[in-house]
Amino acid sequence: MKYVYAFDEGSKEMKDLLGGKGANLAEMTKIGIPVPPGFTITTEVCAQFAADKTYPHGFAEQLGEQIAALEESVGKKFGDDHEPLLVSVRSGAKVSMPGMMDTVLNLGLNDDTVKAIAEKTGNARFAYDCYRRFIQMFGDVVMEVSHDKFEDALTAMKKDRGVENDTDLNADDLKELVDQFKAIIREEKGRSFPVNPLEQLKFSIEAVFGSWGNKRAVTYRKLNGIVGLPGTAVNVQAMVFGNMGEESGTGVAFTRDPGTGEKKFFGEYLMNAQGEDVVAGTRTPRSIDELKAERPKMYDELFAAQEKLENHYRDMQDIEFTIEDGVLYLLQTRNGKRTAQAAVRIAVEMEKEGLISKNEAIMRVDANSINQLLHKQVSGKAEKTVVVKGLPASPGAACGRVVFTADDAQEWSVDRGEKVILVRKETSPEDIHGMHAAEGILTSCGGMTSHAAVVCRGMGKCCVAGAAGIMVNVSAKKVMIDDTVIEEGEVITLNGTTGEVYLGEVDMVEPKMTGEFGTLMEWADEVRVMGVRTNADTPEDNKVAIKFGAEGIGLCRTEHMFFDEERIHHVRRMILAKDEAGRREALKPILGYQRDDFVGIFTVMEERPCTIRLLDPPLHEFMPEASNKAAIDRLAGELEVSEEQLMNKISSLHEMNPMLGHRGCRLAITYPEIYEMQVTAICEAGIAVTDKLGKPVNVEIEIPLVGMAEELRELREVVAGVIKGFGDKINFNYKIGTMIELPRACLTADKIAKHADFMSFGTNDLTQTTYGISRDDVGKFVPEYVDKGVLSQDPMQGIDKDGVGKLMKMCIDLAKGEKSDMEIGICGEQGGDPESVWYCKELGLDYVSCSPYRVPVARLAAAQAEVKEGSRD
Amino acid sequence: MKYVYAFDEGSKEMKDLLGGKGANLAEMTKIGIPVPPGFTITTEVCAQFAADKTYPHGFAEQLGEQIAALEESVGKKFGDDHEPLLVSVRSGAKVSMPGMMDTVLNLGLNDDTVKAIAEKTGNARFAYDCYRRFIQMFGDVVMEVSHDKFEDALTAMKKDRGVENDTDLNADDLKELVDQFKAIIREEKGRSFPVNPLEQLKFSIEAVFGSWGNKRAVTYRKLNGIVGLPGTAVNVQAMVFGNMGEESGTGVAFTRDPGTGEKKFFGEYLMNAQGEDVVAGTRTPRSIDELKAERPKMYDELFAAQEKLENHYRDMQDIEFTIEDGVLYLLQTRNGKRTAQAAVRIAVEMEKEGLISKNEAIMRVDANSINQLLHKQVSGKAEKTVVVKGLPASPGAACGRVVFTADDAQEWSVDRGEKVILVRKETSPEDIHGMHAAEGILTSCGGMTSHAAVVCRGMGKCCVAGAAGIMVNVSAKKVMIDDTVIEEGEVITLNGTTGEVYLGEVDMVEPKMTGEFGTLMEWADEVRVMGVRTNADTPEDNKVAIKFGAEGIGLCRTEHMFFDEERIHHVRRMILAKDEAGRREALKPILGYQRDDFVGIFTVMEERPCTIRLLDPPLHEFMPEASNKAAIDRLAGELEVSEEQLMNKISSLHEMNPMLGHRGCRLAITYPEIYEMQVTAICEAGIAVTDKLGKPVNVEIEIPLVGMAEELRELREVVAGVIKGFGDKINFNYKIGTMIELPRACLTADKIAKHADFMSFGTNDLTQTTYGISRDDVGKFVPEYVDKGVLSQDPMQGIDKDGVGKLMKMCIDLAKGEKSDMEIGICGEQGGDPESVWYCKELGLDYVSCSPYRVPVARLAAAQAEVKEGSRD
Repeated sequence: MKYVYAFDEGSKEMKDLLGGKGANLAEMTKIGIPVPPGFTITTEVCAQFAADKTYPHGFAEQLGEQIAALEESVGKKFGDDHEPLLVSVRSGAKVSMPGMMDTVLNLGLNDDTVKAIAEKTGNARFAYDCYRRFIQMFGDVVMEVSHDKFEDALTAMKKDRGVENDTDLNADDLKELVDQFKAIIREEKGRSFPVNPLEQLKFSIEAVFGSWGNKRAVTYRKLNGIVGLPGTAVNVQAMVFGNMGEESGTGVAFTRDPGTGEKKFFGEYLMNAQGEDVVAGTRTPRSIDELKAERPKMYDELFAAQEKLENHYRDMQDIEFTIEDGVLYLLQTRNGKRTAQAAVRIAVEMEKEGLISKNEAIMRVDANSINQLLHKQVSGKAEKTVVVKGLPASPGAACGRVVFTADDAQEWSVDRGEKVILVRKETSPEDIHGMHAAEGILTSCGGMTSHAAVVCRGMGKCCVAGAAGIMVNVSAKKVMIDDTVIEEGEVITLNGTTGEVYLGEVDMVEPKMTGEFGTLMEWADEVRVMGVRTNADTPEDNKVAIKFGAEGIGLCRTEHMFFDEERIHHVRRMILAKDEAGRREALKPILGYQRDDFVGIFTVMEERPCTIRLLDPPLHEFMPEASNKAAIDRLAGELEVSEEQLMNKISSLHEMNPMLGHRGCRLAITYPEIYEMQVTAICEAGIAVTDKLGKPVNVEIEIPLVGMAEELRELREVVAGVIKGFGDKINFNYKIGTMIELPRACLTADKIAKHADFMSFGTNDLTQTTYGISRDDVGKFVPEYVDKGVLSQDPMQGIDKDGVGKLMKMCIDLAKGEKSDMEIGICGEQGGDPESVWYCKELGLDYVSCSPYRVPVARLAAAQAEVKEGSRD
Repeated sequence: MKYVYAFDEGSKEMKDLLGGKGANLAEMTKIGIPVPPGFTITTEVCAQFAADKTYPHGFAEQLGEQIAALEESVGKKFGDDHEPLLVSVRSGAKVSMPGMMDTVLNLGLNDDTVKAIAEKTGNARFAYDCYRRFIQMFGDVVMEVSHDKFEDALTAMKKDRGVENDTDLNADDLKELVDQFKAIIREEKGRSFPVNPLEQLKFSIEAVFGSWGNKRAVTYRKLNGIVGLPGTAVNVQAMVFGNMGEESGTGVAFTRDPGTGEKKFFGEYLMNAQGEDVVAGTRTPRSIDELKAERPKMYDELFAAQEKLENHYRDMQDIEFTIEDGVLYLLQTRNGKRTAQAAVRIAVEMEKEGLISKNEAIMRVDANSINQLLHKQVSGKAEKTVVVKGLPASPGAACGRVVFTADDAQEWSVDRGEKVILVRKETSPEDIHGMHAAEGILTSCGGMTSHAAVVCRGMGKCCVAGAAGIMVNVSAKKVMIDDTVIEEGEVITLNGTTGEVYLGEVDMVEPKMTGEFGTLMEWADEVRVMGVRTNADTPEDNKVAIKFGAEGIGLCRTEHMFFDEERIHHVRRMILAKDEAGRREALKPILGYQRDDFVGIFTVMEERPCTIRLLDPPLHEFMPEASNKAAIDRLAGELEVSEEQLMNKISSLHEMNPMLGHRGCRLAITYPEIYEMQVTAICEAGIAVTDKLGKPVNVEIEIPLVGMAEELRELREVVAGVIKGFGDKINFNYKIGTMIELPRACLTADKIAKHADFMSFGTNDLTQTTYGISRDDVGKFVPEYVDKGVLSQDPMQGIDKDGVGKLMKMCIDLAKGEKSDMEIGICGEQGGDPESVWYCKELGLDYVSCSPYRVPVARLAAAQAEVKEGSRD
């Protein structure tokens, strides 16, 4: 077994083993990009080390050989008095986890080698600055000494020397600081900083392996759904220095704009700095365009390298580079994170450039992310007061109450249900949970590649970074913008597309489905086979859904129509009626309303199929709370019953577990007259709209919560009876079917299929009953389940293939066994979740249905499902 | 196809086709019992007629041939002036449904044939009495004229003639009555009573077929779980007359005592009467012993016939006989209904007599019925005032409030939850629903074979019949016993074993498991393979269960132990604790109580396996209702928190659907310290009791409501961690497993099995989640479902094989695929339902567990499952 690979032994296909960074360093080496030499320790070594703190047999030998080879290739040796080898040690898992794991730079320095560096570079200050940085980093990362101890010593030294910046300290100061740092380590840990470079390397490798399991990294993986990885690889690479003087520098860049997708080399750099200085956001870096002006040769070399890399990888690259004394090195390349907007534009433009195929373009865009493109943007016409302007770090718009810590963001958002804007000087990996909870992020420091910017673009969250005009005071929980003081809880609006920040709430506008986005969706529609419908109850929502490409209604909930003030009165009269005749009387006025509802819907939907679900909720939902005395009094008066009668009725409707109670088709078994009224309304509307359109509307009448074939048999008779009553007047097309939302419906789907023209999975209720979890009550324990890793996500978010999916499969097999042409779709919320959409394709569903704003997501996901299936064939 | 069978063409094996009565008439004919000749129209004809009111092709011809053959065999002809044929037309389905369907007697009479009968018998009064009875019955049953119309005319005639009894009317009176009856029919129905006997027959056959679908019959089948029958057969039989004079008579008899099972010919008869007079309870009949004294020859013939029948059928027979002018005829034989006590005694004694095998004896007793034998009897030592004594018509004891109508019985019982005693002059099939609702029945008329007596013995309900000392006044809702007036709602106690009735509530005693019952249970234990455990939470219940033969505990619910007044305080302290440390502190005192609980249980159970379910209910169940201000105030004081804090906690515990909420293992994922305390208590108790007994107790620690393998993995670790903490001290045997009560647990049982030593189906919750029905809320619609036939019974009553059973099967296959030796049982309430027990055997379960009083039922059912399986092989 090979455990350690030199960069020239690997390739980009070896990510499982070498991690993303290692595989790409190998690939760059292979294609002739200037990369400092080095080697990668495989993820397998990490997995074994994580399991039992041992190394595989033969690993030590291989490591020794690679060190020797590296020494040979650069002509330097670890610990050498004249040509000492210095290396970086970096983590690199298969999937990028920016900032989550540990890194050690300048490894190999000690009291001897530092002198050699000083001599060789003629720059003692540089050598001792590297040394003190190394000890600081090693002390923090490897020996777990608090970072603050070192910072305090540094601050004290500056104060003592009467200087303001680190750079004002001279070589002697730094040498003294090195001694102080070593003393701190001894004091804190009871052992000395290790002077042997091989020992330094061994400890550093272990520290990187260890960081795989730290809380930050685990949380990041959980939040990003990263599972099934064995561990991280470790990259050991010869150091090059961007901080060796004014002819040195370092930077990060993207081959295209990661915010907009524009094909434009895009990046930032700092001269005389190490890489961490750029990404940490502690110094605000310069635009890469300035490099072109200042050092055109360097820029041209870099530009050529990035062009070569993008063409080679056929995707937008995120690169890190260092210039050491005028010589360019690339330290990393990877597929760059990008906003949804950029992802779409890059995919479409690359297809047009001939770099990738249409199918590849479709697969390049995270279907979930395009939801962002459908959300509001700050309106150009809105009245707004710009209080400050920062960098447009992640586009979109966000509005919410100001909070100043990640914990507050989480508390306000999760516990209080408030929308919040997290305002920080800069963010760090410890803030992830707060960033997740916030609508948007505003920082005072850091650039377009700062932690806040990178993470927000990944999350598709609006971010304004580096708004230098603000002063964040965390302890006082306020932020000052010139004379304006914004306290915790005040509302601001961020415009991540322009970098503007506004006081209060600002008008936003709907996005458009044009340009590259429109093109991508056209391609998706060409490719996909599964239909995409919408869950929408009103003509307005139907219009939005059609604009977003919905091909029909998969779920129209009729109960919302009953809640209008003028209607609910009649519903309540019906509930209080003493007998069927009384209920029928009370239902009469509702018929007219319902007919108008359906006329509105059919008129918008025209010939597109409309699945109309008959009344579903328990009747108590239509009554006031028993504790609301005023409402009870008023209602008793309106309905001309005694308060006692009303209270008796309300208490008789009370249920212990309403989710499992007298609702859905169970109501109609007891009160068939309700469905009769609804079907009458559907028929009257269907006839009228068909006449008006001159083409037949297509209605699918859906009976909810069926658990026994007999329920559907009986109610199909009721529905068919009403339709039959219209005789020859029926000029539209209709089907009668059922929602599949109970385990028993799946288990007996063959019997149910006998009475159904179509089926539609209601995966919300099906998930609740399969798990025995009430969606209304999950807040009490599901977050803890996710925290503890018992669940990887809330079971409502995606189809649970192991449980719910098994039932769905059984249902489909049984139903199609009975009727091979049964139309089967899904209308639970998972119908708009890309992974669930892919799974629906595997299951062989005819369509997915989701909320209007998820329709484009579903269209793209359905196309991706087709591409995936094609690639499986 | 043959649609009509003469009695000498069939046999007792043909019940599907000929119905029970028809098959037995054929069988009796075959073995030489004197049976009036006749023929049977098959159930298939009924099925077709019920479907579309047509008869199968060829039926009319076959019917004609059989009529001709019958006429030939008795030497009489329909409508003949001299030897007119008269027949009875009776229903007879495969399963007996006493009194539920229609019968027509004396068919063939008209104005001509009545004269021939008068002439032939020399008894005009008899002839016209038959005629008027026929018209009355035909008018009621076939032509649907209200029975009252005829009764009113009869009463008026008696009044007019100044007589009291029907028998005081002379031939002329009856002849006039015949004319009046015919006029009533014409007036009510606008058409005449049909004089043509063939037409009479045709209409009567159709009426009997029609009665298969009448409400009474449908209700009876539903209540008795009779499903899958095509319809009823119709028996047409030459009439014999028990009312032809003083040498004629009729009676019903049992080959053994249907109340006690004693081997003693047992019956009742009336001279000069038709059969309906005996069973209707309108005249109190005489004991069969009197026949022996009065007419020894007749008795001997009858005795010999019944003996032959019992030996032939190898079961206790219920026979009907008629003596026509000194000649004995048997009109019916069937396996007699009997009380549970009788069933047991008869089965055991027949085995001892060599009539049947042990396996047959086991199958002879309805397992469900023996539950009755375990219920209380009136104590011999109880102080009691006998207010009246009737016939001991169905044994046992019952106590409840007096009601006077079936509707009241149902209302008081179902709606108000009261136990009631239904007091009637006599009961009729229309009273079935009230009899079902009542604890016991008291009648003033009717004998041991009256409707009330027969139905109560079938239902296993206590009945005192024919208590002639009482006067029932239904309209005033009171009953007079000498001078004592008992009003509606007053409490009385019935002793069905002695026939005594007591005022108020009387002490009752537990039954004993000795005698024949003990023998039968021994045989059952020899035969059965499945284990039988009990669901019981206290040492007292455990003792009862062991007495009844439980082999272990299948479900010990630990939450009941938390509700004691002194304990719940600590539970509440735990709930209100701010953090884990606070909860652990509050749990400390509970540990001692729990240990004592388990010491008590283990001491009783000794080495028998004990499945202890860890805490299951949601925490809000331990808190007072938010609306109970006084309790909140008091508790806030006790716990030293503010009322507001307490209310906040209670409201934070509130759940929309607690059944699907934060309970079961979900509680322990959040608060592992609860299970840690419980397992500590189990270990301490296990160690102590094992020491005391000198042999190891066997504990199965059960984690409830697992839906994801990860939950069990995590909690198994918690449980195992506590046990590990006891180190070498663990001297008892333990397993760690889970209850399977969610669909998802079944669907992922392979994964769950990895972490389980045993599994136990909690079919209560599994049924609720599979159906999506809350047991607490079923009252709102399930009764209607059963009424409408959407469900044949409440889904909680027995395992739903189509849905829940499929999940169970899947679970077993997956779990045993993972661990072939996995112990799997059932602890839902269905574990005591015989059909479900049989199904558990089919599924391959290791044991069933049920409440202590159901243990004998389960033992017998488990033995029956074995016999059934053997007979399938």
